[in-house]
Amino acid sequence: MTTPIILDCDPGHDDAVAILLAVGNPEIELLGVTTVGGNQSLEKVTYNARAVLEKAHATDIPVYAGCDRPIVRTQEVAASIHGETGLDGVELPVPSRPLESTHAVNYIIDTIMSHEPGTITLVPTGPLTNIAMAARLEPRIVERVKEIVLMGGGVHEGNWSAVAEFNIKVDPEAAHIVFNEPWKLTMVGLDVTHKALCTPQVQQRIESLDTDLAHFVSGLMDFFRKTYQDNQDFIDPPVHDPCTVAYLIDRSVIETRRCPLDVEIHGETTLGMTVADLRGPEPSEEECHTQVGLGLHVERFWDLVTDAIKRIG
Amino acid sequence: MTTPIILDCDPGHDDAVAILLAVGNPEIELLGVTTVGGNQSLEKVTYNARAVLEKAHATDIPVYAGCDRPIVRTQEVAASIHGETGLDGVELPVPSRPLESTHAVNYIIDTIMSHEPGTITLVPTGPLTNIAMAARLEPRIVERVKEIVLMGGGVHEGNWSAVAEFNIKVDPEAAHIVFNEPWKLTMVGLDVTHKALCTPQVQQRIESLDTDLAHFVSGLMDFFRKTYQDNQDFIDPPVHDPCTVAYLIDRSVIETRRCPLDVEIHGETTLGMTVADLRGPEPSEEECHTQVGLGLHVERFWDLVTDAIKRIG
Amino acid sequence: MTTPIILDCDPGHDDAVAILLAVGNPEIELLGVTTVGGNQSLEKVTYNARAVLEKAHATDIPVYAGCDRPIVRTQEVAASIHGETGLDGVELPVPSRPLESTHAVNYIIDTIMSHEPGTITLVPTGPLTNIAMAARLEPRIVERVKEIVLMGGGVHEGNWSAVAEFNIKVDPEAAHIVFNEPWKLTMVGLDVTHKALCTPQVQQRIESLDTDLAHFVSGLMDFFRKTYQDNQDFIDPPVHDPCTVAYLIDRSVIETRRCPLDVEIHGETTLGMTVADLRGPEPSEEECHTQVGLGLHVERFWDLVTDAIKRIG
Amino acid sequence: MTTPIILDCDPGHDDAVAILLAVGNPEIELLGVTTVGGNQSLEKVTYNARAVLEKAHATDIPVYAGCDRPIVRTQEVAASIHGETGLDGVELPVPSRPLESTHAVNYIIDTIMSHEPGTITLVPTGPLTNIAMAARLEPRIVERVKEIVLMGGGVHEGNWSAVAEFNIKVDPEAAHIVFNEPWKLTMVGLDVTHKALCTPQVQQRIESLDTDLAHFVSGLMDFFRKTYQDNQDFIDPPVHDPCTVAYLIDRSVIETRRCPLDVEIHGETTLGMTVADLRGPEPSEEECHTQVGLGLHVERFWDLVTDAIKRIG
Repeated sequence: MTTPIILDCDPGHDDAVAILLAVGNPEIELLGVTTVGGNQSLEKVTYNARAVLEKAHATDIPVYAGCDRPIVRTQEVAASIHGETGLDGVELPVPSRPLESTHAVNYIIDTIMSHEPGTITLVPTGPLTNIAMAARLEPRIVERVKEIVLMGGGVHEGNWSAVAEFNIKVDPEAAHIVFNEPWKLTMVGLDVTHKALCTPQVQQRIESLDTDLAHFVSGLMDFFRKTYQDNQDFIDPPVHDPCTVAYLIDRSVIETRRCPLDVEIHGETTLGMTVADLRGPEPSEEECHTQVGLGLHVERFWDLVTDAIKRIG
Repeated sequence: MTTPIILDCDPGHDDAVAILLAVGNPEIELLGVTTVGGNQSLEKVTYNARAVLEKAHATDIPVYAGCDRPIVRTQEVAASIHGETGLDGVELPVPSRPLESTHAVNYIIDTIMSHEPGTITLVPTGPLTNIAMAARLEPRIVERVKEIVLMGGGVHEGNWSAVAEFNIKVDPEAAHIVFNEPWKLTMVGLDVTHKALCTPQVQQRIESLDTDLAHFVSGLMDFFRKTYQDNQDFIDPPVHDPCTVAYLIDRSVIETRRCPLDVEIHGETTLGMTVADLRGPEPSEEECHTQVGLGLHVERFWDLVTDAIKRIG
Repeated sequence: MTTPIILDCDPGHDDAVAILLAVGNPEIELLGVTTVGGNQSLEKVTYNARAVLEKAHATDIPVYAGCDRPIVRTQEVAASIHGETGLDGVELPVPSRPLESTHAVNYIIDTIMSHEPGTITLVPTGPLTNIAMAARLEPRIVERVKEIVLMGGGVHEGNWSAVAEFNIKVDPEAAHIVFNEPWKLTMVGLDVTHKALCTPQVQQRIESLDTDLAHFVSGLMDFFRKTYQDNQDFIDPPVHDPCTVAYLIDRSVIETRRCPLDVEIHGETTLGMTVADLRGPEPSEEECHTQVGLGLHVERFWDLVTDAIKRIG
Repeated sequence: MTTPIILDCDPGHDDAVAILLAVGNPEIELLGVTTVGGNQSLEKVTYNARAVLEKAHATDIPVYAGCDRPIVRTQEVAASIHGETGLDGVELPVPSRPLESTHAVNYIIDTIMSHEPGTITLVPTGPLTNIAMAARLEPRIVERVKEIVLMGGGVHEGNWSAVAEFNIKVDPEAAHIVFNEPWKLTMVGLDVTHKALCTPQVQQRIESLDTDLAHFVSGLMDFFRKTYQDNQDFIDPPVHDPCTVAYLIDRSVIETRRCPLDVEIHGETTLGMTVADLRGPEPSEEECHTQVGLGLHVERFWDLVTDAIKRIG
């Protein structure tokens, strides 16, 4: 049985890999890709999403453009990490499939409301603007969604401030909304994704597939490595977003712990921090609807990514 | 030439009068009524809006239900002022026209995008949740709207705290969004509406119309007077919401001043305050897209209200 | 019977006038002048206080230097209003009396604790840093002080932001402390002091005293007029600080109203606002320890100031 | 060469052990003990400090009472952890040495200003109220102090909220002041002190000294274990405060890392969090005046504590 998902993203080098993993893995049924202003402007990331699907021969997957800016704050993009196009470092194919005319938020609502309750999984890998808007526009989606597995935040790590991660910090109010709705939510944050490093060995393994797509991914990683070295003091780039999809394929890839989670929206040095309360024993599923990823099975993760790239061909 | 408007409201005793003024005055073309959780739950205020239109023989006006709660905060209703139903004190007719199936936010967007630019006026008299959501979901509405004339806030007065008014305080983030978009915006706040008092003389004048509708309005005012006496230290109730519609009929009804306006979303004692910068000379229309009402031509206001009730018959 | 006061100030053109009023009026017993970093650096305002006392032949009055910066925030001075020295526009005499070695905060505490309870009045006309520090260092002063009459804040006016006044905004935490201690406190804010305008007629009247001191004051007013015209859109400068002393000489000079007062320390657009709750009827003295000045008897005020300058000779 | 320190504390079970370590270790010269409202009221913790010194035959050490409440916030004590007296669980001797009459803040200032620059170490183990007040009252102490080694905060742990520790959370503004002054500061927080567990083995080792004082300490630990089991989900109680003194005796006891540190004073879920920026390589001493403890040499720590209790006899 496959897992039907909507991937809500802002490609973005690691979002691109998340798309490839969702397209290439047979256990994931990618219903649609929705986009949100984040790593770059909505226009750019939407084009990128379409181009990556083109590259992956996945023109059956519809793309829906969503919100172009955060709910309350002024937009801030991550050009220092993803470049001016949002996918700097590679040549993108021209997408053959047109953009859908429906707004991403309405698509998310319609999809959830038209499917059986408990069947649709949301996988946000950008700012949570679309998801928050959908929950406010149609509150009934909250109890109909199967679960949310998102990339964002961090318990003991930050990248866009000492204690906050980019996706959450640029739209903290959206994240506050999403984290406080009572749906089942798994936060795959920097504690996990900073372990998903694309080392030279990993990259070599992908490159050795020797397909056009493999070289495309390798080109993405070259650029990503460079910006992470220059701006974040990393040696190898952390490939955040596909960790979410990998978790949906194989729960053992990420070590999780249930705990209350909240998002700080008023702090000065802590704005956009995901606050995990890890005190005391782990609460039961009834007591607590949120859980946080703390560890990554690195090898299994890269196995899944490499396999997906290989399957796409 | 009439002014086509969408009235976005949460009836509410004074919202009811705003609906009647919009229905009864020949210069206003009421395209539709949208509702938002505010004075009472969305379900209740939506029913009330439909019932008031029924009472006004205005079953040609469609009603669209919108957001049921604030964007970020937990919902707080004004039962102390409007009672358990939101329109306590009168008997409501059963609405014959069904509720529209389209969401208010999508109706607002569709209406603005399908009409000529610069033609549609938005008149929000409840929390600004729907308007903020529409602006985020479809940013192009901002330059297409003719203007926004809203009831909310106050420069020198508060009612839901020392310095904040109910509509703004219960969804300050929505108000922050709406006040900071570059559309032409007129804030009709407590500085104006606390002068729109339904004195016994005013009420007597309405009652003397001796129609079923006039007695209905008088019944609303009886209840409204009582709760304002008990909870807000008023002798006569201020009938806030129709001031917006009156201003659209006759600009001389409200004395306005252009000035920068913002909404406080982080303050402790000032949460939801509308901050007007009245220092220095009045800015030009090019410098400043917002203006604030400061005075009310009381007699002309009540003339308009009474006339509308009379016309409806 | 005279009123013994400690004047806690940061001269400052209007502080200088407050010193002169306190020195020249026979009903005020000026025990000491304490200084605080505010309009200019502590070093500068302390020198200015000593120089003004020298100018007023009041070398019997001791001066104590206090805190050089706000409790929590980074210091911000008002050089745009008071110039680089804090008293630009006049030549200052060299003070003959040395600065006291005791810290202002300890002097305030010692004076209050060594006098009979209910006898000492504090008159702060700068940021409230010293007063707040004294209240925290020796909490018993709160019930021993007779009253506090301070210049700062505003109900319907701001000067350092749309809704905040300089003295409060630059050290809002200090103001928050002072406003929330249960001593009797009168806030003489911009609602009062923006009426204390030194018009050409007022200035002419002072000048016509034709003393060295009168010309000194007139020189101060020339500079003050210029900066208020250039930076605050005023025609005549508001002479804030002496309003406090005038109120202690003659309560009828300022129209007051008791009401709860608080200071916003977390707001973004409202930081440092003095929040007055004027809703409902005026509370009793037992219910409410704070009151706010709302009106000024302008003529009587300038009578007192002119008379004091004349008396000093 | 000994290290002269002022211990600023709020005993408190673990403060008591810190006093004993400072008294009993020959490398520490305890100049004086200052107290601050924290674990219990100022009156109670001051009495406790005197009683613990009495118990330790250290009546040559003067005790100075300091601030009785936080700078801005309302006081909150830790009765759930330390009981009604602040040192529940043991019988205290009546202190023979009277309390000093000088205020703790003035004592701290006077001591630092009267000693050679770079000689006095401050060891705060309670809320940072006294230290912050001293820095504001006499800013010159900041460059004269040798260093500050404080117990408070946490990088990856909280106890008074998910991410904040008691000492910092109850007076966050004081901590904000202290952390932002440019003195050399070592934060010994929960990441260290939650490793300083008084296991039954540790307690047995202390008890086996079989002195009156050893049994006194063991009695303290019995109570402390119980409240930590009941309120904080611990098996053995963490003995926080003496870690600071141990670090001054032997730097190898605590593993430290230099990094920027700040304190959140506006956050809702993060109020009082100590925000450490651990991104990138460790800054140099010139770049960064703050460091944080991350690890504890547990055995060496307990060796020092046991040895001190033994030496006191």
